[in-house]
Amino acid sequence: MTAQPFVVVAGVGPGTGASVARRFAKAYPVVLLARGADKFENLAKEINDQGGKAIGISADVSNAESLTSAFQQIEKAFPGAAAAAAVFNAAGGFVRKPFLELTEKEFTSGWEVSQKGGFLFSQHVLPFLLKHAKDSSAQHPPTLIFTGATAGIKANALMATFASSNFAKRALAASIAKEFAPQGVHVAWANIDGPIDIPGRDDYRKNLPAEQKINPDDIAETYWSLHTQSKRAFTNEIDIRTSLEKW
Amino acid sequence: MTAQPFVVVAGVGPGTGASVARRFAKAYPVVLLARGADKFENLAKEINDQGGKAIGISADVSNAESLTSAFQQIEKAFPGAAAAAAVFNAAGGFVRKPFLELTEKEFTSGWEVSQKGGFLFSQHVLPFLLKHAKDSSAQHPPTLIFTGATAGIKANALMATFASSNFAKRALAASIAKEFAPQGVHVAWANIDGPIDIPGRDDYRKNLPAEQKINPDDIAETYWSLHTQSKRAFTNEIDIRTSLEKW
Amino acid sequence: MTAQPFVVVAGVGPGTGASVARRFAKAYPVVLLARGADKFENLAKEINDQGGKAIGISADVSNAESLTSAFQQIEKAFPGAAAAAAVFNAAGGFVRKPFLELTEKEFTSGWEVSQKGGFLFSQHVLPFLLKHAKDSSAQHPPTLIFTGATAGIKANALMATFASSNFAKRALAASIAKEFAPQGVHVAWANIDGPIDIPGRDDYRKNLPAEQKINPDDIAETYWSLHTQSKRAFTNEIDIRTSLEKW
Amino acid sequence: MTAQPFVVVAGVGPGTGASVARRFAKAYPVVLLARGADKFENLAKEINDQGGKAIGISADVSNAESLTSAFQQIEKAFPGAAAAAAVFNAAGGFVRKPFLELTEKEFTSGWEVSQKGGFLFSQHVLPFLLKHAKDSSAQHPPTLIFTGATAGIKANALMATFASSNFAKRALAASIAKEFAPQGVHVAWANIDGPIDIPGRDDYRKNLPAEQKINPDDIAETYWSLHTQSKRAFTNEIDIRTSLEKW
Repeated sequence: MTAQPFVVVAGVGPGTGASVARRFAKAYPVVLLARGADKFENLAKEINDQGGKAIGISADVSNAESLTSAFQQIEKAFPGAAAAAAVFNAAGGFVRKPFLELTEKEFTSGWEVSQKGGFLFSQHVLPFLLKHAKDSSAQHPPTLIFTGATAGIKANALMATFASSNFAKRALAASIAKEFAPQGVHVAWANIDGPIDIPGRDDYRKNLPAEQKINPDDIAETYWSLHTQSKRAFTNEIDIRTSLEKW
Repeated sequence: MTAQPFVVVAGVGPGTGASVARRFAKAYPVVLLARGADKFENLAKEINDQGGKAIGISADVSNAESLTSAFQQIEKAFPGAAAAAAVFNAAGGFVRKPFLELTEKEFTSGWEVSQKGGFLFSQHVLPFLLKHAKDSSAQHPPTLIFTGATAGIKANALMATFASSNFAKRALAASIAKEFAPQGVHVAWANIDGPIDIPGRDDYRKNLPAEQKINPDDIAETYWSLHTQSKRAFTNEIDIRTSLEKW
Repeated sequence: MTAQPFVVVAGVGPGTGASVARRFAKAYPVVLLARGADKFENLAKEINDQGGKAIGISADVSNAESLTSAFQQIEKAFPGAAAAAAVFNAAGGFVRKPFLELTEKEFTSGWEVSQKGGFLFSQHVLPFLLKHAKDSSAQHPPTLIFTGATAGIKANALMATFASSNFAKRALAASIAKEFAPQGVHVAWANIDGPIDIPGRDDYRKNLPAEQKINPDDIAETYWSLHTQSKRAFTNEIDIRTSLEKW
Repeated sequence: MTAQPFVVVAGVGPGTGASVARRFAKAYPVVLLARGADKFENLAKEINDQGGKAIGISADVSNAESLTSAFQQIEKAFPGAAAAAAVFNAAGGFVRKPFLELTEKEFTSGWEVSQKGGFLFSQHVLPFLLKHAKDSSAQHPPTLIFTGATAGIKANALMATFASSNFAKRALAASIAKEFAPQGVHVAWANIDGPIDIPGRDDYRKNLPAEQKINPDDIAETYWSLHTQSKRAFTNEIDIRTSLEKW
């Protein structure tokens, strides 16, 4: 008998990560990865309380050892199980600053999370996705989704760090998508184009009307649609924005 | 009481058009537009037999009068109704030929259907979509989907006609998308990247294995997902290909 | 002995066309095509007075017969000569208007000039460019340059006509570029991104400071650089904008 | 009196770097940066012997201290001088390998050179370019050119490292271009699309016919054309390929 497949969400916070976890938890046990346990504790509890299954694991996606340890814990929690889906929802280096004032550390922060993190996470999770691809009882092709941003398509002034690491993340997703599609793994990059409506976030988004902010639950719904696509109709790149967003 | 909204599919044939019509017919009455009645008669019968509702209307999308007459028939069939969705599934000018051997007529054929057709169809159907956008009981935002191809993104040698008219169709979709999104209409362009598995089609596709051909039912499923997106998470451009397609 | 090759500029006006004609006239006799003789008479006189050689021919690029007649006149003026370069500088359909207010005639005007015009002009001039490609005494590879605009890359709201025909023009250029490069013809598309500083033009550009307007003489200089590229380093797409332009 | 401006080429080897140095040495003293002195010694001698002026400095572009030291040496060699142009010709991480076999070190190598190197080099050279922008006797706007590759536009399977770092380099170039253009600095990214004809290179390129390999002298000529563009006609992105290259 095949063990029930799990889903991993890397970069769980109050916004997209939480919504995605909730959505996929309707069908699969979910693993919540975040650096700090405060990011996933309440969410795991909420999902478990509502009849789903969730475990949270502290992990730093930019650190190979940390991820290796996290996936060992996953294997212990779900012995022999494959991954039905994985979402890489982490991004770093959101710095808006004159180029000559950027520190090397700031510039590196984009690379650390968005690129190295995306690379390491993909290397750790792909074996579990490939396992699901070989499982003839799998309901949907295994899916790896990268949450991206318009900075992955358009590099603006003062955004050298975020734009370069987001362009790189998009390229990473595309290269992986092409290599693993013939093996049955569905990889997609989503351009989340605009501010996300994150509960409790006290920044420039606070005073924007709701209809100008992307609803993370709706992002999750679209991610779920991607997951349910058949091998004969994969979407590899998708954009998501509100009806009021300029593009 | 609001009249039940309808869905129009322009360019109904045995492939994508039929699959889309069947999928949307599960939720709405559908109008099938094609130049020849042979394209829609069996399909309309099939949908009606299975408990759905479909009417077929002969129309040439590249001819304003023909479209005007078609929409008058639609209004008669569904008095006062809005359009919940519309799919422009027509394309012209698929000619693979040395550039200097192209006739003006051949080159024009791409423009006629893909561009002028897209323009005229959009002008005729948008008022009905806008009406749905104002209907507070509408279940999903009104959706206008253009079926495109990779030739809308990449122009290859010997494909001047198809590529130029497909690039133009993509631009048309994007311009309309941006203008009407704030009014609540969701416009999307889908890059159908690869051969479609069209029943009974006796061409180069015949001997391709099924997994190398996009399943039109799966395209329809993705179109349906686009239709169900909320105003706070519209997708405007999407690609669809098999797991074996090179891109 | 080989006849001296000529250069054709289609769409000569007071801006880019005139500058390009003047620049290429330093090296080649130039043919000026425009619908009305008033567009090229003074320019031809100026070039001839300054020791260059120019002839003007009235022609409508969207009309095959008109172009055929024009090229017959060219052959008479330059018997047996090849074309060293050709510049398609015509564009139609610059209409900024709500989509539902566009007339079919307006929408068609973009197609007529930018697409059908580009198609017909290319078909007429390519045999002369191919002839130059076979001339071992040719100094530079024959060059066909399409003047484009940002509307060929980005389709904005209210710009359905101009954007769709410019997207199409870019695709046309790319398809021709790929087909004819192996035969030694260099085809390039130039994105002229921003307002051009056209002498005597009395529109929104009038009050813009000069440094926000692209200098047509500088466009001509870049076109000349494209022309002098070797077969081992062709540029096929290029953008040109002022240092103050947002992109 | 203004000190004569210099030009810096980072990543000098036998191919593009050497050709660019030779071309710009016709007009300016050139600084050759490479990790090992063997990369620039002969070239510096050649340029100096032929009446130009060149100095070579050992530097690692991925190391801030190394670059700081290099620019101190430049200031000593050219006291008070501005930079007329700078070319970032370094790239790292050209690894063709199944994704799951990539080591973290290999993946990081792309970042180190192409991104961090591009970042650090730009931060060091921009003050000298800005100085030239303020020099009213400058003949051409100061120019910063990034040598890129098609991997900066298209991410293929097995190329995750090179593609992601090249996408990032393109974004870096664009972000810098937009920030510094209003201050008069011209930044361009060049897509060198195909194998370069590098003298003495003993790899897969060896047996390709010359016409399938991009001539580095021709690349240099195009870079020079970019440098001579006026502020009213900057090119920010350009592609360069042979007439036989597929794209």
